[in-house]
Amino acid sequence: MDAPRGMADKAMLRTLRGDQPSRPPIWLMRQAGRYLPEYRATRAEAGSFLDLCYNPDLATEVTLQPIRRFGFDAAILFADILLVPQALGQKLWFVEGEGPRLEPVESREDLGRLKRTEDIHETLEPVYETVRRLSGALPRETTLIGFAGAPWTVATYMVAGRGGLDQAPARKWLYSESEGFAKLIDLLTEATIAYLLRQIEAGAEVVKVFDSWAGALAPDQFQKYAVEPARRITVAIKAIHPDVPVIGFPRGAGAGYAGFAKATGVDAVALDTSVPEEWARDALQSDSAVQGNLDPILLITGGDALVRRAERLIEILGDGPYIFNLGHGITPEADPAHVETLVRTVKG
Amino acid sequence: MDAPRGMADKAMLRTLRGDQPSRPPIWLMRQAGRYLPEYRATRAEAGSFLDLCYNPDLATEVTLQPIRRFGFDAAILFADILLVPQALGQKLWFVEGEGPRLEPVESREDLGRLKRTEDIHETLEPVYETVRRLSGALPRETTLIGFAGAPWTVATYMVAGRGGLDQAPARKWLYSESEGFAKLIDLLTEATIAYLLRQIEAGAEVVKVFDSWAGALAPDQFQKYAVEPARRITVAIKAIHPDVPVIGFPRGAGAGYAGFAKATGVDAVALDTSVPEEWARDALQSDSAVQGNLDPILLITGGDALVRRAERLIEILGDGPYIFNLGHGITPEADPAHVETLVRTVKG
Repeated sequence: MDAPRGMADKAMLRTLRGDQPSRPPIWLMRQAGRYLPEYRATRAEAGSFLDLCYNPDLATEVTLQPIRRFGFDAAILFADILLVPQALGQKLWFVEGEGPRLEPVESREDLGRLKRTEDIHETLEPVYETVRRLSGALPRETTLIGFAGAPWTVATYMVAGRGGLDQAPARKWLYSESEGFAKLIDLLTEATIAYLLRQIEAGAEVVKVFDSWAGALAPDQFQKYAVEPARRITVAIKAIHPDVPVIGFPRGAGAGYAGFAKATGVDAVALDTSVPEEWARDALQSDSAVQGNLDPILLITGGDALVRRAERLIEILGDGPYIFNLGHGITPEADPAHVETLVRTVKG
Repeated sequence: MDAPRGMADKAMLRTLRGDQPSRPPIWLMRQAGRYLPEYRATRAEAGSFLDLCYNPDLATEVTLQPIRRFGFDAAILFADILLVPQALGQKLWFVEGEGPRLEPVESREDLGRLKRTEDIHETLEPVYETVRRLSGALPRETTLIGFAGAPWTVATYMVAGRGGLDQAPARKWLYSESEGFAKLIDLLTEATIAYLLRQIEAGAEVVKVFDSWAGALAPDQFQKYAVEPARRITVAIKAIHPDVPVIGFPRGAGAGYAGFAKATGVDAVALDTSVPEEWARDALQSDSAVQGNLDPILLITGGDALVRRAERLIEILGDGPYIFNLGHGITPEADPAHVETLVRTVKG
């Protein structure tokens, strides 16, 4: 497409900038994923999951697949939150059916083995290339979202060397040697800023910061390691790109969602599945747009329950700035026909 | 002990009944557990974990161990939330180092294989015997807590046949065939009531209902499957034993904690680690007592951070009805010396 990409006809951007489109924009977390046969085909062609992330041709293709099929209002760059630690020099691999593995970073001394922030771009250049291609390839009404993992969530994987139930290794470090742990968070905050700025320069129109394990933090640590890094990232981005909206996702923050947008400056907060919609309307929507939070299980089970719940969310949240989404990523078991039904329900 | 057990000198009961002792009572979730060498010795003697649960001698012993060592204000019956499904006829076993396994109950038809509520007591009689022995053996200032898993949480294990990350099997059932799933929740609600009433008759002075996976429910389902069963259980207990306090623990409820005590009638809500203390004071403590919510990781790491955080919780919550506890069970890695420090800090 040669036409310049503007915001006038983008429902997602309009919502994030305080305008109210006639219906909420919709996209779904992990919308490019295993529930789609075309994704599985491209994934098989790519080789490993990381090969797919670093292949601009194929990463562009899988990002576009759900846009073609469902006409979502936003496309989100296909990548992984662990590319940043890899770009910082940490060894990363994926065990099929189990998830990511990393050579753990467990102490202040281990931090010395990591690269400097300015050196991450060499590894991440193919990701920026994917963003550039997407920026040229998307329909003009589709908003392009870039993203990164939040420093705390990325740190939980870096320290544990894998995903886990309670993020205990990172939590132990933050209590037992808080200065060293704060250095890791500082490094990740800087790297995240640098990474997101490059995505924006490559064409990302919105950026989202995924703090999937924010709910594992006690309240004082949540302020220190979830709120404060999100604020620093948002301020740094807006200092250079004041018009680029930032979406925060402090998953599991519970009552900690209240005040998160004000404290960090994000333009929208993504709500996990547990957040009550009336509470979101009353306690959150005056501070920022909200995004969420349909139970992804409903895209497996479908039926009336799916339609009724989607309608309910729109009824309660649709009078304020609202972006329709799930409360968690779509699962491999989801039925594309149910996604179709959902999109029809939201688009009206 | 022959002296009758009254409430006059029990800090825990006084707090739950709206009185304000000079300092918050303290006990810890899973205080009888693997972090204690004397527990590990008794556990080895017992054989399997289930053998320990069903052995009144040894279950009494492990319940008393942390009382002897630390002088906690409350003892909680040593048992497991999965004894109820086992008493209902579901096959249950534990895989060492992995956790519980059950023969899954996956459909309405499977419900027909379960026993009736009135038949659970035969299996559970040794648990009631443990409560009777504890009632006679505890120091008079120590409150005896009985407990059960909440219907939703127990159902997640019954349906999945094991513990899991997202409780997806139960969530799928509740959406895809909600009437059948509601029958399972009804059966568990009745069984839980019958179980807790027997514990009270055997000497439990307080009962706690653990809804460990409440946070996995979308808000509408949280009302239906967490709030409503907790209300029914509380009403049924108070109809017969109006003076027995009930503690609810809708772990991960986030903003759903607000209004939970009013909607269910519980006398206290146990707070998970993520709940901000100022919010608990402002939004919850006017409705009920609160209990919690120190990060259990601090009992691994210890030091100033432990003492400062405990003091902070007491400072913010200590002016209202407050029971000191963790936000989640104590871990096997916890250091008994740090528990000692914590108890000293709280008892002043």
